Amino acid sequence: MTETLSELSFDIASLQAAYAAGLSPEAVIAEAYRRIEAAADPGIFLHLRAQEDVAAEAAALPAFDPDALPLWGIPFAIKDNIDLAGTPTTAACPAYAYEPEKDAFAVAALKAAGAIPLGKTNLDQFATGLVGVRSPFPPPKNAIDPEIVPGGSSAGSGVAVARGIVSFSLGTDTAGSGRVPAALNNIVGLKPTLGALSNTGVVPACRTLDTISIFALTVPDAWRAFTAAARFDRGDAFARDIATPPLTAPPPALRVGVPDAATREFFGDTVQAESFAATLSTLEADGACIVELDFTPFFKVAEMLYEGAWVAERLTVVEDLIASDPDALHPVTLQIIGGGARLSAVDAFRGIYRLAELKRLAEPLLEQVDLLCVPTIPTFYSVADLEADPIGPNSRFGTYTNFVNLMDLCGIAVPTAPRSDGRPGSVTLLAASVRDGLAASVAERLHRATGPSLGATGRDLPAAALPADGPAPGEIEIAVVGAHMSGLPLNHELTSRGGRYLRSGSTSARYRFHALAGGPPARPGLIRSDGGKAIALEIWALPPAAFGEFLASIPSPLSIGSIELADGSMVKGFLVEPAGLDGATEITELGGWRAYLDSQ
Amino acid sequence: MTETLSELSFDIASLQAAYAAGLSPEAVIAEAYRRIEAAADPGIFLHLRAQEDVAAEAAALPAFDPDALPLWGIPFAIKDNIDLAGTPTTAACPAYAYEPEKDAFAVAALKAAGAIPLGKTNLDQFATGLVGVRSPFPPPKNAIDPEIVPGGSSAGSGVAVARGIVSFSLGTDTAGSGRVPAALNNIVGLKPTLGALSNTGVVPACRTLDTISIFALTVPDAWRAFTAAARFDRGDAFARDIATPPLTAPPPALRVGVPDAATREFFGDTVQAESFAATLSTLEADGACIVELDFTPFFKVAEMLYEGAWVAERLTVVEDLIASDPDALHPVTLQIIGGGARLSAVDAFRGIYRLAELKRLAEPLLEQVDLLCVPTIPTFYSVADLEADPIGPNSRFGTYTNFVNLMDLCGIAVPTAPRSDGRPGSVTLLAASVRDGLAASVAERLHRATGPSLGATGRDLPAAALPADGPAPGEIEIAVVGAHMSGLPLNHELTSRGGRYLRSGSTSARYRFHALAGGPPARPGLIRSDGGKAIALEIWALPPAAFGEFLASIPSPLSIGSIELADGSMVKGFLVEPAGLDGATEITELGGWRAYLDSQ
Repeated sequence: MTETLSELSFDIASLQAAYAAGLSPEAVIAEAYRRIEAAADPGIFLHLRAQEDVAAEAAALPAFDPDALPLWGIPFAIKDNIDLAGTPTTAACPAYAYEPEKDAFAVAALKAAGAIPLGKTNLDQFATGLVGVRSPFPPPKNAIDPEIVPGGSSAGSGVAVARGIVSFSLGTDTAGSGRVPAALNNIVGLKPTLGALSNTGVVPACRTLDTISIFALTVPDAWRAFTAAARFDRGDAFARDIATPPLTAPPPALRVGVPDAATREFFGDTVQAESFAATLSTLEADGACIVELDFTPFFKVAEMLYEGAWVAERLTVVEDLIASDPDALHPVTLQIIGGGARLSAVDAFRGIYRLAELKRLAEPLLEQVDLLCVPTIPTFYSVADLEADPIGPNSRFGTYTNFVNLMDLCGIAVPTAPRSDGRPGSVTLLAASVRDGLAASVAERLHRATGPSLGATGRDLPAAALPADGPAPGEIEIAVVGAHMSGLPLNHELTSRGGRYLRSGSTSARYRFHALAGGPPARPGLIRSDGGKAIALEIWALPPAAFGEFLASIPSPLSIGSIELADGSMVKGFLVEPAGLDGATEITELGGWRAYLDSQ
Repeated sequence: MTETLSELSFDIASLQAAYAAGLSPEAVIAEAYRRIEAAADPGIFLHLRAQEDVAAEAAALPAFDPDALPLWGIPFAIKDNIDLAGTPTTAACPAYAYEPEKDAFAVAALKAAGAIPLGKTNLDQFATGLVGVRSPFPPPKNAIDPEIVPGGSSAGSGVAVARGIVSFSLGTDTAGSGRVPAALNNIVGLKPTLGALSNTGVVPACRTLDTISIFALTVPDAWRAFTAAARFDRGDAFARDIATPPLTAPPPALRVGVPDAATREFFGDTVQAESFAATLSTLEADGACIVELDFTPFFKVAEMLYEGAWVAERLTVVEDLIASDPDALHPVTLQIIGGGARLSAVDAFRGIYRLAELKRLAEPLLEQVDLLCVPTIPTFYSVADLEADPIGPNSRFGTYTNFVNLMDLCGIAVPTAPRSDGRPGSVTLLAASVRDGLAASVAERLHRATGPSLGATGRDLPAAALPADGPAPGEIEIAVVGAHMSGLPLNHELTSRGGRYLRSGSTSARYRFHALAGGPPARPGLIRSDGGKAIALEIWALPPAAFGEFLASIPSPLSIGSIELADGSMVKGFLVEPAGLDGATEITELGGWRAYLDSQ
C-alpha cells in the first residue's frame, strides 16, 4: 500500500477515487507528512500541526460522502496571515504574532466541508511582496527549480501544493500574491472576485483590495475549494454575496483581449514571449478570437498600487508596530510600508479619483472582450537576483498582476506547456468581477489543451473534464438561435445579465427557420412546423430576474416560448409570430444562424 | 394679459397648458424677470443673464412640441458651482472664479430639451454648508419667512423656485444641499442616485459624494427635469448609466422605515415632531406600513462627513487657493475645509473602512423596508441663530441628510402640510440607489395627499396626478387574455408572485383568438393575423424575477411575446404558436375569454 500511496496524486479527483475505493484519510494524512519530510524544506511551513492531531481529525470524519462533504478528507495548507484556531498567526513577523481564538471565516467553511488543515505557510512579511524571500524565516524553495524564487507573497502555500503535500492551499492576493507563486511553481492560482471570500480572520494588506486566493493542482480543484469557502459573511464589511454555480464548459467563440505588440512586456525574456504566443495560438485553435489591446491604462493602474495612496492601507495594519519597534519589520517591508506615512488624505482621494478615471479609460477595452489573457509573470528571477536588488525584480513580477484588484477584475493563473527551456509556462485569465466561473472554465480547457504535468509532482492531469452543462439551482435555461449566440452582436444582452453558456444543440426536426426583414442586427425567426428541420441553437442559463428583464427587452415579432430539442425535451427559447414573417427569407435548409451568416 | 400672466403658476404642467393655449415663451421670460424685480432680493442670483439675450433664446425655439422638447420654454436657474457657458462660475468665491467655455454636461442636456437658463444662483461658498448664509455675497432671503435662513448650500436655487421665478433649478447635494433649502422654502428637492447626473462642469465639493440636485414646485416637474438631464457621461469617471422610466403610481402596501422614538431627533422642536408624526399618519392612511428603526448607524455615518476623512476631498479643490490666499475664503469655510490638511492617507482609508462597516450594520435595517421617511430638517434656525453660532445650527440641519450620499441612497424632499405655526412641513423619502423613481412616486402621492401650496407662491398643486395604472419602477407589464385574468383559475400564478392588476383593455383589431384543445384549465390562443378583431385583456405588473419565473412555467404551445394594444402601444403578453392550434376552436368573434366562458 505504501508504494501505491506515494504514487497517488493529491488532486481531489484522484483522492476521491481512492477514498471511494476504500483508502482511509488517516493514510492520506500520513502520506502528506511523509511528503513534508521528503521535501526537506523547513521554509514551507511556519507552523505545522502535530501529525497525531491531524490524524485524529481525519479519523473522526463521518463515512465518506463527497456530496454531503465535498472536501471530505482533503488536506490543505493555510498562509500564515489567515487565522487557524490553535496555531499562532504571524504574518511572518514574530513581533506581530497573536493566537486567534477562532478560525478565519473561510477556513471554518472549508473545515465544515470536510477539509483538513495541516498548518500555516511562509509568506513575504505582511503579504507585501511577490517574491517569497521577504521573510525573516528561511524562504521556501521553489518546487521546480531551487535557484529561482518561490514567488510570493503566498510562497509556502504555492510550494506545498506544487510538491503534492496538500491538495489545495489558501493564499491571499492584493497585488498578485495568489498568482505569481502559481506561475513559478507550475500550479493553478485562483484569485476570486473581491469580497467573494470573507476576509474575517485575515491580516489585511490593503483592506479594500485583499482577497483570499486558492492554489491547486487543477482548475476543478481550485473551483471546488472556492465554492466551499465562498459563504457570504455579513461580518466582513467588504464581503459580497456572490453565486458560485458549478463549473461548466466555456462558451465557444470567446473574445480574448491580450496586450498588443507595443504593450507586451517581457523585459527581454524571449522564451517567455514565445511561450505566451504559443498559448494564444492554442486559444485561437480552440476557437477564441484574440483581440489585441493597448494595455497602457492597465499599466497606469498597476503603478498606483505601490507608488500611490494604497501603500497607506498597509500602514493602517502596522502603524503602531512601526512606531514602537521598527526593527521588528523586515527591512525591505519597512521601507515599502513606511512610505505610506508621507501620504495625506488629499493624496488618498486624488488616488481614488485617478483610479476611477483610469477605470473609465479601460472600459471601452474591456467591453470589446469576454476575458483578458496575460502572462502571469513577464520573466523569471532567481534568489540571487533578489539578493542583488530586493525591489526591482519584485516590481517587474507585478507587471500583469498589480492592476487586477484595483480594477475589480477576477482571475486565475493556469499552467501552460513548459517553456522551451523547461521552466513552467503560465498565463492568467482575467474577467470582470463575478465572472470567476467564466475565467475558470476557460482556464480548465486551456490547462487540458496544453497538458503540463501537475506542479512539481511529475503526475498528469486526471482524465475527467468538466461534466455539468446544466443550469445551477434557480437558473433558467434559454435557447438562442440567432444574434444572441456566442460572439454575435446581441450576445452581450445575455452576458451583461449574468448569462452563462451551457451547451450547443439543435431543435427537433420540426422547425422552420427564417432571416427576418429589417435590422441590423439581423434577427432569426424560428417557428414550429411540419416539414421543418433541426435548427442549431445554444442553450444559456440566466437568473430569473435577468430572464424577466431580458424577455421584457425582446421586440416584436419575437417571443419566448417552448422549443422541442433533438432529444424530445423542451426548453424556453426564441420563436417568431407568423405575422412577423412578412418579407422574411426562409433559411431552414441552412440548418442554423451561423451557416446563414457564413452564406452571406 | 399681464394680470393673467402674473397669476400663472410656473409649474411645468401649468406652463405647458399656457403654451398649448398660445402663450409665447418670450412672455414667460418677461414675467420671470418681472418676478425677479418684484422679489427685490439681490442675494438670489450672482449672475443674471441679460433679459434680451434670454428673450432672444426663447424666440428662437421651434414650434411648441413638448414630446420633442419636454422642457420647451421652461425657465430655470443654475447654482453657481455649475458651468453655464458665457457666465462666470464663482462657487461664491470671487478669487476662484473662472469663465467656462462649455456648459456643464447636465446644463447642456436641459438646454437641448428646450429649457432656458436665466442665470447663476448664490450658494454657501464651495457648497460647504446647509444654511445659505456662508457667502461673501448678500445671502438670499428665505422665500417663506425672511427671518429664517434660506438653507444651503443651494440657497439661491431654492429661493428662485419657491418665489415662482423659475420652474426648476439646479442645486448640488453632498451633505443635504439639495434637500435642506427645499424644506425651508416649501418646495421639492430631488437628490438623485450618485452618478445619475454627470458632474462634468461642476465644481466638486466631495467628488465621490457629489450630485447635481433639482428643485421644483412639484414632484413631476423635478422628475421631468431629472429625466432630461440624466444622460450617461463617459467623461465623468463617477457617472453611472441609469434608466429613468416615466413616473407612475407607487405600488401599494409599502414598508416605510422611520426613526424610532429613541432616535427621532428634533432638538426640542415639538411642532416639527408633530408635523412629522402627522405625515406618517398620512402615509399609513394611504396603506403604508410604518416600520420603526434604530437610526443609530445612520447617524454614525452622518458624523463622518465633516468629522472624518471626507473633508480632505473638499481640500483637493481649494488646496492651492488656501496656500496662496487664505483670505479669499469665507472664514467659516476656511475653518472647515482647512481642517482637511490635518488628515493622513491612513485616516482616509480608516474612514473608508469605518463607512463600509457602518453600511453593513445598516443593511439589515434597509432590508426591512422599501423606503425610509425622515424629517428633512429637525428644526428651523434663523439668520440671527447663525450669526451667533455659524457651525452648530448648520450641523444640526444635517441630522437627516448627511448620511445619505455616504450610504449611496437616493432621496427626495417633499413639502407636507404646513406646521401648526405656519412654517412649511417637509419630509425626505430615501431609497436604495437607482430607486429614485420609487421615492419620487411616493413623494408625489404624499404631496398630493397633504396638499400644501407651492413654494411661496400661494398657488395650489395642478390637478393632474400620476397615471395610476402603470407599472412601478422596475416592474414589467404583462397582458393576460385567459385563465390568468382576475378571478379565473390561474390568476394565483400572478398574485402569488407579487403581481399587481393595472388595468383592462384590448388588443388592436388584428388578432385571432382561440380556445385551445386540452385542459383543464382551458387555455386561450391569441395570434396576430390580418382579419382579426380586438380581443379583451388585462394588464398586470410583475417584478422582473417573478416575470422570469412565471414565464419559465408557461407550457407549450404558449409563449410570451409582444401584443399590440388598441392605442398602438406594445405590451408583453401571451401568444400561441400556430403549430399549437390543432384542434382549437376559433372564438375571435366573441372578443374575449370571459365572453367565451359565458358562452359555454
